[in-house]
Amino acid sequence: MSSILTFLGKGGTGRTTIAIAAARKLAARGSKVLFIGQDPSPVYSMALGIEVTSEPQEISPNLSVVQIQSTALLEQSWEQAKKLEQQYLRSPILKNVYGQELAILPGMDEALALNSIREYYQSNKYDAIIYDGSGDTSTLRMFGIPANLGWYVNRFRGVFQESDIVKALSPFVQPVTSAILNTPWKPENLAPEPMNQAGNMLDDGKKALADPKKVISYLVTTSDPVAVATAKYLWGGAQQVGLTVGGVLLNQGQLTDDLTQQFSPLPLTLLPRKDLDNEEILIDALPNFQDTANIPQPTTINIADKKIRVFLPGFTKKQVKLTQYGGDITIEAGEQRRNITLPPQWSGRSVTGAKFNNSYLELTIG
Amino acid sequence: MSSILTFLGKGGTGRTTIAIAAARKLAARGSKVLFIGQDPSPVYSMALGIEVTSEPQEISPNLSVVQIQSTALLEQSWEQAKKLEQQYLRSPILKNVYGQELAILPGMDEALALNSIREYYQSNKYDAIIYDGSGDTSTLRMFGIPANLGWYVNRFRGVFQESDIVKALSPFVQPVTSAILNTPWKPENLAPEPMNQAGNMLDDGKKALADPKKVISYLVTTSDPVAVATAKYLWGGAQQVGLTVGGVLLNQGQLTDDLTQQFSPLPLTLLPRKDLDNEEILIDALPNFQDTANIPQPTTINIADKKIRVFLPGFTKKQVKLTQYGGDITIEAGEQRRNITLPPQWSGRSVTGAKFNNSYLELTIG
Repeated sequence: MSSILTFLGKGGTGRTTIAIAAARKLAARGSKVLFIGQDPSPVYSMALGIEVTSEPQEISPNLSVVQIQSTALLEQSWEQAKKLEQQYLRSPILKNVYGQELAILPGMDEALALNSIREYYQSNKYDAIIYDGSGDTSTLRMFGIPANLGWYVNRFRGVFQESDIVKALSPFVQPVTSAILNTPWKPENLAPEPMNQAGNMLDDGKKALADPKKVISYLVTTSDPVAVATAKYLWGGAQQVGLTVGGVLLNQGQLTDDLTQQFSPLPLTLLPRKDLDNEEILIDALPNFQDTANIPQPTTINIADKKIRVFLPGFTKKQVKLTQYGGDITIEAGEQRRNITLPPQWSGRSVTGAKFNNSYLELTIG
Repeated sequence: MSSILTFLGKGGTGRTTIAIAAARKLAARGSKVLFIGQDPSPVYSMALGIEVTSEPQEISPNLSVVQIQSTALLEQSWEQAKKLEQQYLRSPILKNVYGQELAILPGMDEALALNSIREYYQSNKYDAIIYDGSGDTSTLRMFGIPANLGWYVNRFRGVFQESDIVKALSPFVQPVTSAILNTPWKPENLAPEPMNQAGNMLDDGKKALADPKKVISYLVTTSDPVAVATAKYLWGGAQQVGLTVGGVLLNQGQLTDDLTQQFSPLPLTLLPRKDLDNEEILIDALPNFQDTANIPQPTTINIADKKIRVFLPGFTKKQVKLTQYGGDITIEAGEQRRNITLPPQWSGRSVTGAKFNNSYLELTIG
């Protein structure tokens, strides 16, 4: 399994330059590295001096580069969807729509990119994956897919199972195998295999995200107050999707006490002004991304003490909203909403106390 | 009806600063202006020195400011969806899911923002709307919703109408009014009212986008070659979603012949280095955004000559792919795919010739 590293920060702070330097650093140390670029413009080809393609190509020892191409990925996913439909629907209806005609709607880039990252991650071909996304809320929404889509799937599965509609659909939706073998199939088992597969995939994604040795992000900022505020905002947002933030890279700025305090307890690394002829200096200045000790975790659930601890840096008490519906707790902060499903041991219990202290929201379960 | 103005370009080129200056300029000339900010970080509050909220507030004569808040917009939309469901489903199934628990998945920000822009646009309260989005592919995907989602709705409506599933569902899906009045309702009329309303909304969106007096974008770049390449790429991508590009704003750069030629025939405007104390100089330097004569149109369909002319600046012949399925032509370039539905007069006809010349793809219909 590889580890995934990404960079968050305001546009123009040097995220892509740093991501490329990080890829080179890890490759030079002997890791097999894949650099995945999301930007569809010619930016990577210009930065690397080669034509970046939608298939990984090795551009130097241990370093491969690939550019996400949503249209091609959508075609592949569509073919898979059609195959699944054929297995589960008695009369498939999607077969006459061709992948080549599908346009990209908002959100598809993120879903396709995450799926692509997952496939590279599980291919075991790389020790490290550097993902250069838009580095803003879109990237957070992407990393939020396992947790949030997982929640939607579970919540709506319950809702639909109780409906008449599913019962009406059951003669049409059933595994072709069970139809052939004439085994009974009930609406309660609604789309068992593909649904379970998707559920497992999302669970695996959540678990990978929860382990900073597997997925980690770094904030990039200059000394510009707007860039600093954006980095702080993204720090908080990253916690909400369960993405660990490992440190701050201060690009061409001044390391002040104020900055150190604003991002405490994260380590700050000062990067030198990057000279195009001298990438070495930048590479040397980068931190050791593999050092993940002492990094605050987004969420800690302590079963024995009946406590949930949620790290929400950069937000004030006023900006945090808390609600509970059944076994789900919803925490809202900064346009990110997270649902925490209570562990089965706490079934039927609810939040009886909440404190916001030192960037941590502490919940007590009664 | 107001006009909508937005800015596209690489992060860090000054898009937000320019968008705010543009809003002030139009307001100073007497237009009622609404500035809509997409960025959820504190960037607008810092730039404007006031706390920007999710409801429009007038911050100076003629100038109101609002920040898109996806979580609040999602709750509103969910309530509307539940009302619609109650009208059309005999036993509503969504009523037990609350808007407050819904997390934001990728794509929702764009869909909710476009819907919000549409509502402000149709409110007739403003002469001009300045939309400050991410300015990259996400913004293009957002403006592509009317054309692309419209295509999906039409294509899949056809596919589903032929399926057994719709027939099985018909007893459950029908307008409550027709059930009460005991009027007949057939699957062929699948979800007539909400579907038609959505279709009309998307058609209206496409028409607004096609009129540069209603929706227009400007490219923002510095002299940095990567920023220039990004701007050129976005120029081509904008055509693919039907968004007119009115000109180029060169921020703190040098106006060279090479740049002028690269963006020809667009007018280039050189902006001075912005001094925080001196926004006036920037405001004075901005072009007259209302001058939309002589701007290349994304697509022109000439019924008499049986020609379609598609403007695709920044792409080479090799990057453009063309396919036809039935009455739809798919044009792919730079990760944007556009479907052009042939007008009814050309029903049954197909593309018999294609030429790529001077950034224009010229199709002949036989």
